[in-house]
Amino acid sequence: MRDLSTGVTVWFTGLPSSGKTTLARVEVLDGDLAREHLTKGLGFSREDRAENVRRIGWVASLLARNGVIVLASVISPYRDDRDAVREMHGERFVEVHVATPLDVCAERDVKGLYAKQRAGELSGLTGVDDPYEPPLRPEVVVPTHQQSVDESVELLWRSLT
Amino acid sequence: MRDLSTGVTVWFTGLPSSGKTTLARVEVLDGDLAREHLTKGLGFSREDRAENVRRIGWVASLLARNGVIVLASVISPYRDDRDAVREMHGERFVEVHVATPLDVCAERDVKGLYAKQRAGELSGLTGVDDPYEPPLRPEVVVPTHQQSVDESVELLWRSLT
Repeated sequence: MRDLSTGVTVWFTGLPSSGKTTLARVEVLDGDLAREHLTKGLGFSREDRAENVRRIGWVASLLARNGVIVLASVISPYRDDRDAVREMHGERFVEVHVATPLDVCAERDVKGLYAKQRAGELSGLTGVDDPYEPPLRPEVVVPTHQQSVDESVELLWRSLT
Repeated sequence: MRDLSTGVTVWFTGLPSSGKTTLARVEVLDGDLAREHLTKGLGFSREDRAENVRRIGWVASLLARNGVIVLASVISPYRDDRDAVREMHGERFVEVHVATPLDVCAERDVKGLYAKQRAGELSGLTGVDDPYEPPLRPEVVVPTHQQSVDESVELLWRSLT
């Protein structure tokens, strides 16, 4: 067993056309990036959030079906929308609940959203004045507030492999 | 044990700032893409190939040191250059030899390089009229010509985790 939790480089070497890139198939789909490229124009209403999740989910399922390991990072606040994405995937779906409590998220406030909401410059913030429905039976729950990033990544990899 | 060999979506859900993106840290460094962004202007001489590999290796080591799982896909024909990259990484390095023989690579000819070389439109093609030094003790050897892509990916994941 190799410990991947603290980072690793997997270096593929071989002749031109030997298959290096084919074997290094991992795709990261990030909700914020997807909103730039895949779902531009959608807002944060119930319907637009559903469409956003559905569209990212569909691209993810296409990739996964073709043998790609997809890491999708999307707030996806509604259970129904996530279950629809799971449905598209068949067996190829692992739901990870990044179960950091609201007060810790608001403290971190990576993008300044919580501060903006408090200042009245933003409304409809998930978990504050917009719903977040936690998964009922996710394959993995990661309590990032109770452990280090390395421990979280290790837990994740242990659950996946 | 979950079988990742035929593709999977890992869907991270959670509140804003819960840590979703931090946990989905995988980076793919592709030699061809790197030549556009990281090593533009370098050619295919012995010195330029060394500098190309060294530069990609340095970026990979920075990422790996910060807990990212990096999949690097680079011809990297010289043993010395790959060993230098390994040295930079300390323990965080896995060398994968995509050990497809020359005749199979030339048959696949994904980018038409082998045909161009035969037609005299290109010289210095690795494995044909430029050296390729196979790894002596790679952590993983993948014989893509003797098994399916799914089998290769499975072998790889079994070796890594």
